[in-house]
Amino acid sequence: MSDINLARRSFLKSGAAVAATLMASAAANAGIPAAKVQKWDEEYDVVIIGSGFAGMACALKAGRAGLKVLILEKMPVVGGNSAICGGNVACPVNPVQAAQGIKDSKELFIADCLKDGLGINHTELLATIADRCNDTIKMVVDCGCEFVPNKMLFEAGHSVPRSYEIKAGTGSGYIRPMEAELKKIPTVTIRTRCKMDDFVVDETGAVVGITARTGYRFNAKLVNDDRENKTGKAVTIRAKKGVMLAAGGFSRDIEFRQAQDPRVVPSTDSTNQPGATAGVLIKAMGIGALPIQLCWLQFLPYCNPREKGFGVSVNFTNHACMDYGVVVDRKTGKRFMDEHAGRKIKSDALFQVIGTDENYPIAVCDQAIVDAINPSFVKLPLEMGTVKKFNTLEELADHFKINKAPFLEEVKKFNGYVAAGEDKDFHRILKFNNGLNVSKAPFYGIEVSPKIHHTMGGVLINTKAQVISATTGQPIKGLYAGGEITGGVHGASRLGTVAVIDALTFGMIAGEEFAKMA
Amino acid sequence: MSDINLARRSFLKSGAAVAATLMASAAANAGIPAAKVQKWDEEYDVVIIGSGFAGMACALKAGRAGLKVLILEKMPVVGGNSAICGGNVACPVNPVQAAQGIKDSKELFIADCLKDGLGINHTELLATIADRCNDTIKMVVDCGCEFVPNKMLFEAGHSVPRSYEIKAGTGSGYIRPMEAELKKIPTVTIRTRCKMDDFVVDETGAVVGITARTGYRFNAKLVNDDRENKTGKAVTIRAKKGVMLAAGGFSRDIEFRQAQDPRVVPSTDSTNQPGATAGVLIKAMGIGALPIQLCWLQFLPYCNPREKGFGVSVNFTNHACMDYGVVVDRKTGKRFMDEHAGRKIKSDALFQVIGTDENYPIAVCDQAIVDAINPSFVKLPLEMGTVKKFNTLEELADHFKINKAPFLEEVKKFNGYVAAGEDKDFHRILKFNNGLNVSKAPFYGIEVSPKIHHTMGGVLINTKAQVISATTGQPIKGLYAGGEITGGVHGASRLGTVAVIDALTFGMIAGEEFAKMA
Repeated sequence: MSDINLARRSFLKSGAAVAATLMASAAANAGIPAAKVQKWDEEYDVVIIGSGFAGMACALKAGRAGLKVLILEKMPVVGGNSAICGGNVACPVNPVQAAQGIKDSKELFIADCLKDGLGINHTELLATIADRCNDTIKMVVDCGCEFVPNKMLFEAGHSVPRSYEIKAGTGSGYIRPMEAELKKIPTVTIRTRCKMDDFVVDETGAVVGITARTGYRFNAKLVNDDRENKTGKAVTIRAKKGVMLAAGGFSRDIEFRQAQDPRVVPSTDSTNQPGATAGVLIKAMGIGALPIQLCWLQFLPYCNPREKGFGVSVNFTNHACMDYGVVVDRKTGKRFMDEHAGRKIKSDALFQVIGTDENYPIAVCDQAIVDAINPSFVKLPLEMGTVKKFNTLEELADHFKINKAPFLEEVKKFNGYVAAGEDKDFHRILKFNNGLNVSKAPFYGIEVSPKIHHTMGGVLINTKAQVISATTGQPIKGLYAGGEITGGVHGASRLGTVAVIDALTFGMIAGEEFAKMA
Repeated sequence: MSDINLARRSFLKSGAAVAATLMASAAANAGIPAAKVQKWDEEYDVVIIGSGFAGMACALKAGRAGLKVLILEKMPVVGGNSAICGGNVACPVNPVQAAQGIKDSKELFIADCLKDGLGINHTELLATIADRCNDTIKMVVDCGCEFVPNKMLFEAGHSVPRSYEIKAGTGSGYIRPMEAELKKIPTVTIRTRCKMDDFVVDETGAVVGITARTGYRFNAKLVNDDRENKTGKAVTIRAKKGVMLAAGGFSRDIEFRQAQDPRVVPSTDSTNQPGATAGVLIKAMGIGALPIQLCWLQFLPYCNPREKGFGVSVNFTNHACMDYGVVVDRKTGKRFMDEHAGRKIKSDALFQVIGTDENYPIAVCDQAIVDAINPSFVKLPLEMGTVKKFNTLEELADHFKINKAPFLEEVKKFNGYVAAGEDKDFHRILKFNNGLNVSKAPFYGIEVSPKIHHTMGGVLINTKAQVISATTGQPIKGLYAGGEITGGVHGASRLGTVAVIDALTFGMIAGEEFAKMA
């Protein structure tokens, strides 16, 4: 929280003229009363905030029903994180499973999600995904998305193979064909560099439009782009049937994410695109949307704090140091976790050590370990200089400022554990280690930091993708949401490939709800 | 979420006339614009919502500075959960520790809290508690609170004994003398059966007053009293210096708690008084207060499933059986956890054993242990019949249907661990146990079950107890908070006796902030 006060209330002081004038409502976050909007600059049936999976799926269904649809995307390109994610997609109980004799069920899918989600998932939302996922897959295939034929991926945490592999190798395998399809629908407009500023609500609390800025230029150098960025031209946009929130998560929101999980410091990196901020979520909370499970951020525990985003050293840190070597706390020189535990356990342990003073742990291995892994894993990080090579462990300790004497003792102790086949400190499974230990020069070291991958929490929706109000306990009229801006589907932690089906399915459902109003 | 839609927007439709008229702002949750308040029915410097530890501490400091203070309490009696809680209070680095040679530190206190809090605590708030706790204790002692002299409790999850034992045996040991002290201050008014309805905010977003209802009658039979209850007479109350939120947690809010943690069903019991609902928290979110870590609900692992709510046996189970005795699984006759671990660890372990067939574990101690605790801890539960007394361990096993032979072995083994000073099974700290073990007849036994006790999340505050806005990242002018309605101090799970020092300290700090404005 130390940096939460950094930004100023500059928007209120010097924001775009129209929006500032409209800001006369009681509280800064209360939405704008419809009575204060003297003229709508534009009118649509449906306004969609965000152009990833959820936004595009919603636009497809609403646009094909003949509704006039506007998709806003604040970044210069469409797709958000959806365009850069892995793109494989879970689909419990599907025809490929049937053909291959893989027995799956809605209940098994829900049970798998609950296990990783620590039991706090909203199971009615998972049930909806299971009920509708084959319709979702049909929708994207009809757009031209291509999956590897007759293939079911057996993703971690799932009890059975149930995920389609996207041929393109990334989420762009959906975004490109869906965008092409949307461009064929004459009533659908996609507008990049357009940022939603606030909701316009009528006297009953229903959402009837938004204020936005066209020609907006996102600035990743600002501490808080949502508050500080003043670019663009203010417009008022009416949404006659409603507004769809498809703005994604907040993995790149320095202040908001740290308030929820203070282990995350400003320098904590994320695998996400830079526009993943909490602005739309906060505005939704401002008009009463009930936030749930916001403090669950999912991390990858193999990343390097000096590399940007996913980086180049994840495989080295994971498959050399964590599979075979050790990770130590610089201050104590000692190990502090089972380096082979699951992602959440390791991320938690790493954060404990990192603390607030960025005391990044050091992952260590030796030449014998490097000889045993894929050579590509070490080549690029060595060239980039994030992995360093040393003639002795003493030199390694000096370079990374590791507490030397206890560190050398610790490595000796670990080697003893490997020899004995038992880790007495952290009960790491050593039987697959093939006698590898940390003893043969040269030695390799790299800093480790978890990076934020997905923010689990968000606004509460019902099975119709309607946003629930904390104040009334009822859906907020005219407000829908899908994908990472919502909470509950994944609970505390999500399984791979479930985010894609979540966003596509609830986007589709919101679009269907709008289509009913056509 | 299945029941979240139960309640109607009935307040808007048929609420108290004045409040309904004022509800013309943009959204139902946006606060009431000051410009719409035609007349203040009452004027105070400080309005405090809630009369527990945080509220009373704030009133003391503000009232003694000469400010005109109003404490609102919606229930018919003052004190909320504070009046019925255990009442022992953590105070890291205190004079009794010094006299007894107990080495403690701010850092150790923070580390202990982080361990149970899973690392997501806001450490700057914990540091504030450590810095100010001796002032807090002085404040309550000056009011006439009495602690057991020269005694430091070794509470579960703490690394050293650091908690004062309240002589009264409950939080009423603070509430009564503090209330008496407040009654001596002519500028302080305490008003029960008065419910805060909404905040009044000026055009800058600052809180300048509230709307409330006098003569309100809480109705525990309603699914959602905050929405459905229409009793009382509407008033507008100006707060010239500000409003203090001390309204507690939401352990009894059927809808809100289940939205955050769907494992909690409507019938899940809680130790809390029935008024512990989310109404004030939701209104605070409505004017922009940033909610953090809402999905962490804490269970108290010392409760009895045959007693309703908090019951009468918590102190016995905690301070006799879990501090000194053992807890066993009836089916195996064996211990299954460190009985001195933190609340989350123990609750998780207890739930594992209880399973779906209500296999409530049995907590056991002997006469020597009972002789060493506050006699009041055992008197009432023995009278109520939830604690049972037996001449032999065999009789105890027969009564509770414990697997006898392994149980008798297990007690023997535990006594050996106590003698050796080392618990080889669960690494329980035994060095402060003074050699107590389970060996001297008569013997005592009781069933154990966790109940919802404390909701960890709430609004984000800074170290001055100012509430932080999600919209601006800045303090909301005129809005302060302390105690269970705030989040961050405890992270995911709190240690026993830390809630009391949290609420008293941030209540005191808010009062000091108001006093500076006098």
